[in-house]
Amino acid sequence: MIVIFKPHTTAEKIDQFSRWVQAQGLQAHLSRGENTTLMGLVGDTTQLDLEQIQSLSIVERVQRIQEPYKKANRKFHPQDTVVTVPAKGGDILIGAGHFTLIAGPCSVESERQITEVARRVGAAGAKVLRGGAFKPRTSPYAFQGMGADGLQLLGMAKQDTGMPIISEVMDKSQLPLFENVDIIQVGARNMQNFELLKEVGRQRKPVLLKRGLSSTIEEWLMSAEYIMAGGNDQVILCERGIRTFETATRNTLDISAIPILKQKTHLPVLVDPSHAAGIPWLIEPLSRAAVAAGADGLIIEVHDCPEKALCDGAQSLTPDQFEQIASGLRPFISLMGRKFS
Amino acid sequence: MIVIFKPHTTAEKIDQFSRWVQAQGLQAHLSRGENTTLMGLVGDTTQLDLEQIQSLSIVERVQRIQEPYKKANRKFHPQDTVVTVPAKGGDILIGAGHFTLIAGPCSVESERQITEVARRVGAAGAKVLRGGAFKPRTSPYAFQGMGADGLQLLGMAKQDTGMPIISEVMDKSQLPLFENVDIIQVGARNMQNFELLKEVGRQRKPVLLKRGLSSTIEEWLMSAEYIMAGGNDQVILCERGIRTFETATRNTLDISAIPILKQKTHLPVLVDPSHAAGIPWLIEPLSRAAVAAGADGLIIEVHDCPEKALCDGAQSLTPDQFEQIASGLRPFISLMGRKFS
Amino acid sequence: MIVIFKPHTTAEKIDQFSRWVQAQGLQAHLSRGENTTLMGLVGDTTQLDLEQIQSLSIVERVQRIQEPYKKANRKFHPQDTVVTVPAKGGDILIGAGHFTLIAGPCSVESERQITEVARRVGAAGAKVLRGGAFKPRTSPYAFQGMGADGLQLLGMAKQDTGMPIISEVMDKSQLPLFENVDIIQVGARNMQNFELLKEVGRQRKPVLLKRGLSSTIEEWLMSAEYIMAGGNDQVILCERGIRTFETATRNTLDISAIPILKQKTHLPVLVDPSHAAGIPWLIEPLSRAAVAAGADGLIIEVHDCPEKALCDGAQSLTPDQFEQIASGLRPFISLMGRKFS
Amino acid sequence: MIVIFKPHTTAEKIDQFSRWVQAQGLQAHLSRGENTTLMGLVGDTTQLDLEQIQSLSIVERVQRIQEPYKKANRKFHPQDTVVTVPAKGGDILIGAGHFTLIAGPCSVESERQITEVARRVGAAGAKVLRGGAFKPRTSPYAFQGMGADGLQLLGMAKQDTGMPIISEVMDKSQLPLFENVDIIQVGARNMQNFELLKEVGRQRKPVLLKRGLSSTIEEWLMSAEYIMAGGNDQVILCERGIRTFETATRNTLDISAIPILKQKTHLPVLVDPSHAAGIPWLIEPLSRAAVAAGADGLIIEVHDCPEKALCDGAQSLTPDQFEQIASGLRPFISLMGRKFS
Repeated sequence: MIVIFKPHTTAEKIDQFSRWVQAQGLQAHLSRGENTTLMGLVGDTTQLDLEQIQSLSIVERVQRIQEPYKKANRKFHPQDTVVTVPAKGGDILIGAGHFTLIAGPCSVESERQITEVARRVGAAGAKVLRGGAFKPRTSPYAFQGMGADGLQLLGMAKQDTGMPIISEVMDKSQLPLFENVDIIQVGARNMQNFELLKEVGRQRKPVLLKRGLSSTIEEWLMSAEYIMAGGNDQVILCERGIRTFETATRNTLDISAIPILKQKTHLPVLVDPSHAAGIPWLIEPLSRAAVAAGADGLIIEVHDCPEKALCDGAQSLTPDQFEQIASGLRPFISLMGRKFS
Repeated sequence: MIVIFKPHTTAEKIDQFSRWVQAQGLQAHLSRGENTTLMGLVGDTTQLDLEQIQSLSIVERVQRIQEPYKKANRKFHPQDTVVTVPAKGGDILIGAGHFTLIAGPCSVESERQITEVARRVGAAGAKVLRGGAFKPRTSPYAFQGMGADGLQLLGMAKQDTGMPIISEVMDKSQLPLFENVDIIQVGARNMQNFELLKEVGRQRKPVLLKRGLSSTIEEWLMSAEYIMAGGNDQVILCERGIRTFETATRNTLDISAIPILKQKTHLPVLVDPSHAAGIPWLIEPLSRAAVAAGADGLIIEVHDCPEKALCDGAQSLTPDQFEQIASGLRPFISLMGRKFS
Repeated sequence: MIVIFKPHTTAEKIDQFSRWVQAQGLQAHLSRGENTTLMGLVGDTTQLDLEQIQSLSIVERVQRIQEPYKKANRKFHPQDTVVTVPAKGGDILIGAGHFTLIAGPCSVESERQITEVARRVGAAGAKVLRGGAFKPRTSPYAFQGMGADGLQLLGMAKQDTGMPIISEVMDKSQLPLFENVDIIQVGARNMQNFELLKEVGRQRKPVLLKRGLSSTIEEWLMSAEYIMAGGNDQVILCERGIRTFETATRNTLDISAIPILKQKTHLPVLVDPSHAAGIPWLIEPLSRAAVAAGADGLIIEVHDCPEKALCDGAQSLTPDQFEQIASGLRPFISLMGRKFS
Repeated sequence: MIVIFKPHTTAEKIDQFSRWVQAQGLQAHLSRGENTTLMGLVGDTTQLDLEQIQSLSIVERVQRIQEPYKKANRKFHPQDTVVTVPAKGGDILIGAGHFTLIAGPCSVESERQITEVARRVGAAGAKVLRGGAFKPRTSPYAFQGMGADGLQLLGMAKQDTGMPIISEVMDKSQLPLFENVDIIQVGARNMQNFELLKEVGRQRKPVLLKRGLSSTIEEWLMSAEYIMAGGNDQVILCERGIRTFETATRNTLDISAIPILKQKTHLPVLVDPSHAAGIPWLIEPLSRAAVAAGADGLIIEVHDCPEKALCDGAQSLTPDQFEQIASGLRPFISLMGRKFS
């Protein structure tokens, strides 16, 4: 951490600050220039409150040198994390050379629908079934999902097909309903719902953490750090597009986030092309781009009859289209050297 | 709502869609151009799912004409809403010609601190005392606030000074602790925590709803609509800066949001210049600008000793500075024709 | 174009407006709802000034239905445009199934440097040589490029290697110096330098038009339209990243822009991964992603000794690294069915 | 400037870098931590190429400590710059305690129009007349302004009323036509047209430099530095809104930019509320906010008959409305202690 002092700060005040720094167990390296005096704080500065220091009347600016996350930081954990999802036919591994397809409808609607979709996407190569039971909707007047009943139907499809299931939790009070859910999804709008993060950090099952609509990669990793700080290191990151000025797509898929994350963290990185674009025909090219950029998997919305979907159908593919896309992705996945069976 | 059909859509399919529209109790006005065919959907379209329609294979694009919010919409409620906060010395009114100062420390730290700050800001013109008990912090390693104890200390300051209090809730499970809190604050990161919005919608006390870091004004009003749909119409909106590419300030205060909101909604609009800027010396000019743009009040962080603050102190003013700012604002408030005593 | 009238607009005023619309050779379709009255303007509305109509006192909002570009619009020119660059060994074709690599140093520095780089990138598969002579630099104190001398050195490398050359023009007064340059590059900062666009529209050679840092895809296509309206239809679009809040990369590569452009326009689309990321090791994954998303080619900075580069060296690769990347891209290009020899 | 080295960089390489730094006339202060080694570069680092250093294989990151602008920097020129515009009735001063209103039509259309508007806005308190002759239009099919004829009409209005005039230049080749124009305006889209900046830097008359749509404040000051580096220190900055995700306004007026600029630079700061909002009724509240935030003046579009305007009329006010706004601003200007007659 670098502290830049305001011009004309007295040597005495800097000295006093230096003593405080040392009392925190850090070293203080002073550097005096013609126009600027600054101090390097050396040691473990993750516990320091950057904003508190910024507030001091002698301080002009503070710059962090080290990343504020530790458990999620590849520097301290060079090995890739592998997330393990128990399944009937053998554990499903996410990360570390595997490529994982997750697919299913935006909202669970009926037993017939979810089971049928599960069979179809499973046959096409999906290893995990997604399905929304609690739906975050911008409007209070829109369909909010089937809730507990939806989770139960998901459970039936799991029973039928042997596929592990993933569903989104919107509030920590819903977690008891997720006992049979294999991967807990934290949505973009809840990426900084810190109470929820703490609670899923106490769980002992994988968590898929979507990136917030306007979250920096560093903030996203800090949210993963919240979960890991609670003792749960089975965290999967999922890029789903960020908010920009461009209106041709609903969000802008930040494709660079994939290689950046691969360098900064050891956690697996998935991409959600359905929500990134908001346009069904963009799912295919964005999926290919995600594979080519190094993603560990994809999570795609598939619906058996998009024209009747109760919600978010705009982003959905039919099972036939999904099959075609999955099949088209295979050679790319293979070129990237990923295991995908 | 305008539906633009894809080129070469058959008359039969458009007809079928038209019948569905009419079955929803709406009128369908078709308009055929050389290059484009479109349909105007006339009637109450707030219940329609724009994305569902967008997903239809015959649809190129859908454009909303009417706002999707009703209870928050000035068109249907032309009169300004006045939020009433009970207080010892008589109700405090927010909105409708009154100008309200809310002030207090970022975090409650001790009885002495909160009571002292309360007295000072009250003397300078603040009518409501703010104080953080549950703190949303980017890092799991940062101080997370005093929690229930903090709320209790706030209650003591209320008892001592007669000032109503406002504090931020981070999860619906914390609401029972807020019984003695007069205004419930929903923070920027929870603006789309829909479960929390539904729950504060069931409360019968004022809610201050901050704008999300990257929320459009329309999304913000939809979140207010969530609260109001629950039966709680005592909603105060609070602009606190949005996320942009500019790095000279922590956020970019969207000053235009004030007059825009005044036209679109009847709810009172406050501004938080402390968080918008993240720089203490910007609080004064931004406060003046907010007054001049038509804000109904300000919420400002004030700390008795920013150099010792445990958190967010960077944005805080001393009570002396606050007094000076409040006094400098008076003539501007008066020019704007607002009641401020 | 849809015109939404303000509430309580009199029938007489709407009638008057309707007559004006018809005088412009358009049809006016009126649609009266309970809360909203609107009019569809049918016909060729590209000549209409949306903002002029927006300014009318009776108008609440105007929404365009048709794209405002014509010559660049795939609707009216379904066939892919092929840009032809004459070269010693036979024309080089850009677009329409070909994949084109363009490479070379950020700045031309010396005959030895540019010739050496040309040979190396040519051997690795690049078909066109890039080199900066006029450099847009944020600081007036930074090296501004070799100017005319740089173009001459580029010409020597062209002579030596037979590779066509591309270089950036910064002002229309420089165009006479570009006689020997095969593709004129218009940089991101000049994407809306309309005088320059008009002038390159009068040229009869290919123009590579980079996307502005904060330009929407529609604005970008309107800038292409400026060039095409001048009679020059040899326009290549080049995505190079947009400005967002994310600071981990210099810009955010908008990967979705590639398929979106492929649908909206018939012009070839290239990607510049060097400027998009600003980080050399990101060039490889972003290049792969661009290929997989459907780009018609790449323009990459390559320098023989990045550690001595006079400018922008941060983004450069060595010829060895470029060779490795180009070779790694081949199977992806081939999977995409593109011709690349 | 702080240089952070990659982990495991050898002492020898750091030593070599240190010698290079010293050869540039700078001091190098090394600081070795457990996880990070960094070097402070002390001295005048404005001539250093940050990106060149960033490109070195041993460097992880570079952070600037000092601002890269000198002539525009308040640190080196604490006194406010006063821009002087010669006028019949005595010099008009911009900055340093004066408040200056500039007004006039978006586009010059006729002698009658411009002279009439000039008289009306002059009577209402405007000191300088604006009028567009060369218009930057997104569409090649839109009216591009009257060009040289427009400047001549502006000159007539100047002759008639004695008001100095300001108009936008779009290309350096147009500058000879601006001899009679008193303030040269560089528009948002040309803020980084560096050839144009250099050329207006060679002029000896005031330049009004608008902020680019997505330019940071630092980039904006670097563009001012371009003009000042050419020897022209009569630069006026004009905030006109930045591009964000919000769609309720055309741009987001960055009100914080005013106090930030006042601290960082000695140049006068004006605000253009017409283009910031794109909505006529927002001009009044945004003008008040700009005054209250400390602006040195405003530039406002006024048209005698907006319903007939050929371009950009959407943002225009009638002279009557302008008079009313100007009169409403007086007490705010006076509260801010500005001279305005």
